[in-house]
Amino acid sequence: MLDFVFHNPVRIHFGKGQMVKICDEIEDGKNILITYGDGSIKQNGVYQEVMSLLTDKAKSLGKKYNVFEFSGIASNPSYEHLMTGLEIIKSKKIDFLLAVGGGSVIDGTKFLAAAAFYSKGKDPWEIVLKRGRGVERALPIGTVLTLPATGSEMNGNAVISKKSSKEKLAFYSPHVYPKFSILDPTTTFSLPKNQIANGIVDSFIHVMEQYLTYSVNSPIQDRFAEGILLTLIEEGTKIFKDKDKDKDKDKDNLSENYIRDYNVRANIMWAATCSLNNLIGVGVPQDWSTHLIGHELTAEYGLAHAETLAIIFPSLMHVMREGKSEKLLQYASRVWKIENENENENENENENENKIIDLAIGKTREFFEMLGVKINLSDYGIGEEAVNKILGRLEKHNLIKIGERGDLTLEKSREILRNSL
Amino acid sequence: MLDFVFHNPVRIHFGKGQMVKICDEIEDGKNILITYGDGSIKQNGVYQEVMSLLTDKAKSLGKKYNVFEFSGIASNPSYEHLMTGLEIIKSKKIDFLLAVGGGSVIDGTKFLAAAAFYSKGKDPWEIVLKRGRGVERALPIGTVLTLPATGSEMNGNAVISKKSSKEKLAFYSPHVYPKFSILDPTTTFSLPKNQIANGIVDSFIHVMEQYLTYSVNSPIQDRFAEGILLTLIEEGTKIFKDKDKDKDKDKDNLSENYIRDYNVRANIMWAATCSLNNLIGVGVPQDWSTHLIGHELTAEYGLAHAETLAIIFPSLMHVMREGKSEKLLQYASRVWKIENENENENENENENENKIIDLAIGKTREFFEMLGVKINLSDYGIGEEAVNKILGRLEKHNLIKIGERGDLTLEKSREILRNSL
Repeated sequence: MLDFVFHNPVRIHFGKGQMVKICDEIEDGKNILITYGDGSIKQNGVYQEVMSLLTDKAKSLGKKYNVFEFSGIASNPSYEHLMTGLEIIKSKKIDFLLAVGGGSVIDGTKFLAAAAFYSKGKDPWEIVLKRGRGVERALPIGTVLTLPATGSEMNGNAVISKKSSKEKLAFYSPHVYPKFSILDPTTTFSLPKNQIANGIVDSFIHVMEQYLTYSVNSPIQDRFAEGILLTLIEEGTKIFKDKDKDKDKDKDNLSENYIRDYNVRANIMWAATCSLNNLIGVGVPQDWSTHLIGHELTAEYGLAHAETLAIIFPSLMHVMREGKSEKLLQYASRVWKIENENENENENENENENKIIDLAIGKTREFFEMLGVKINLSDYGIGEEAVNKILGRLEKHNLIKIGERGDLTLEKSREILRNSL
Repeated sequence: MLDFVFHNPVRIHFGKGQMVKICDEIEDGKNILITYGDGSIKQNGVYQEVMSLLTDKAKSLGKKYNVFEFSGIASNPSYEHLMTGLEIIKSKKIDFLLAVGGGSVIDGTKFLAAAAFYSKGKDPWEIVLKRGRGVERALPIGTVLTLPATGSEMNGNAVISKKSSKEKLAFYSPHVYPKFSILDPTTTFSLPKNQIANGIVDSFIHVMEQYLTYSVNSPIQDRFAEGILLTLIEEGTKIFKDKDKDKDKDKDNLSENYIRDYNVRANIMWAATCSLNNLIGVGVPQDWSTHLIGHELTAEYGLAHAETLAIIFPSLMHVMREGKSEKLLQYASRVWKIENENENENENENENENKIIDLAIGKTREFFEMLGVKINLSDYGIGEEAVNKILGRLEKHNLIKIGERGDLTLEKSREILRNSL
């Protein structure tokens, strides 16, 4: 096991009706900015519930908040839009941020929290460019999670895009961990199918990027990771296995077979949070190459985050198999129950292992497809020209030696992209 | 899954040489009380290292601490002894407690931290009697863990004994979580065999008491728990499997075969911490009956904590099997790989399940015995008279309806104790 520091101060309130804890968590008299996205929280009633808690419920507890709003934080939250939110924070003297939504809303809110105190006269985009270094304090954040996927509700990470330069970059700061997060699985009942599917893919890849490297003798972390993967597969299958049966009725993405089972949603929600809350990543090497390449695909072509991951990750397993073979075989065995049968005695060990690895990669692709997430660039009408375009972007961002050993060169990225066509 | 709150603010520094972080963690000018046990930390050099860090190293960083000591915190830390430590805290105006040792030292230090601010004129034993309710603040605590077992380094629990009344009781307070804990696996190299073995048993039972109840559809928590159990079995076996080979040379409990492998120690250490840091216990029913009955055995007969657990827990599985059957079968299958073969077609399902459960209980007992931990009261010369004695103690402490359903009555406790003879 490698040396590590583990610290995660976020308080999680998990379960139906837990939103009521907001008033306990936020001190009296705060100037609260509620941040949210496209307004779907108004359709599913979460917005109304939050507002009622911050006014009527607060009053009954002898508290009074001044509540302001900043909406329109879309997927791949943009620096440009967030800067208009920063104006509200300054003019209204906001001292608490309440993010209500999914990872994009929470990420955008983390940027605002850090930008609020960023050195005068400096462009807060520096926070992102410097990957969070230089952030010395931030406004306190609370979150009401409505889309399990990114784990942002329980970590210090955020990914921000800049439209003008078509950039999408991640930053981390210990100062932007939420103070609390409310995880009520019933808030996910109204999500469209593709968002649930994308969330499962995102969580799955988060786990794999902390798991599928080289072995450092870390059985606890490995088994926790495998436990999350198995749960995502089992619970995801419960929701999506019959998805094609009623394709015709599926006009509004809400078919009969699209299970609204509390436990399924709860397990997916907790799995997504545990996928990226520091737990499985301590003391092990990590390989975030799939995210790095995927971010460039999103920035260039506008593909949804999870769509890029489902395309890149299986190809990365294929191309980088040599350095990852020990963990690939463990993944094949423990997650997909593919065992080394070696029936053909003439076959050498290496060939046999390659077969097992191919089967595991195939199972992974099948799982993504079962969820309805496509696995090739061509599925989105993207052709060979993408390879050089993305390589150019990787070079520009100095992502020329990535992976757990720094051996995922531009040449390897080219192979991965070609394999993803 | 049941509703839950998860919050664990402890910062873990894990790895060889991490003790140096002490100076970063403790503010300049603090009056520090170092708390420790019987002085074994002077033999293995941990004491000297801590002292050198708090003086020379601190000086090189421009910090100055006033360091005081309170030693002699033995296993089952006693209220009576701790009250002498409280005098030092008051007379020296201590404002930081640094516990250096195992669970007993850390538990005792948590009591001191809470007692330091306990209402004037009131007896701090009330903290324990009220199970931590009424604790409104506590001195900050840091820990240097030298014995993986209790998980106290990453939770808000403590168990304190009162010699005069032969009581051993647990309390919990959110105010006594350590601010930081240093986990350096090399500090465990000098531990005598039986302490390593007891620590593994303690951790194993902690997991089981959060796992072996009734199913509430919590696959993440289940698999995390199973992952810890499998790790404790694998790593424990590495240390102890050959323990009898060199029995004769084993005068000092430190045989050749007693492996001092960094990774083995690191994995056991992290497993022990994850066994009781809130993680696997969120959203699931819990059954702490084995600890409750075990505490009475320690209070009455002076058995080591883990010794009581190894005796009581297998009997509890045996007696309470009906309500726990689903999880017992899962435990048999996932942890011990005992599969339902049902070769005899005439046998009914119930009989077959009972056989599997018996096998799993047997495997558990074998594991404890392999570690060198005894599994019967008679192994300690304790006879039938113990049954009524312990039942009387349980009744006195109102432990008459315990277990995850409150159906572990005194009558069931009697069965468990009789089965443990």
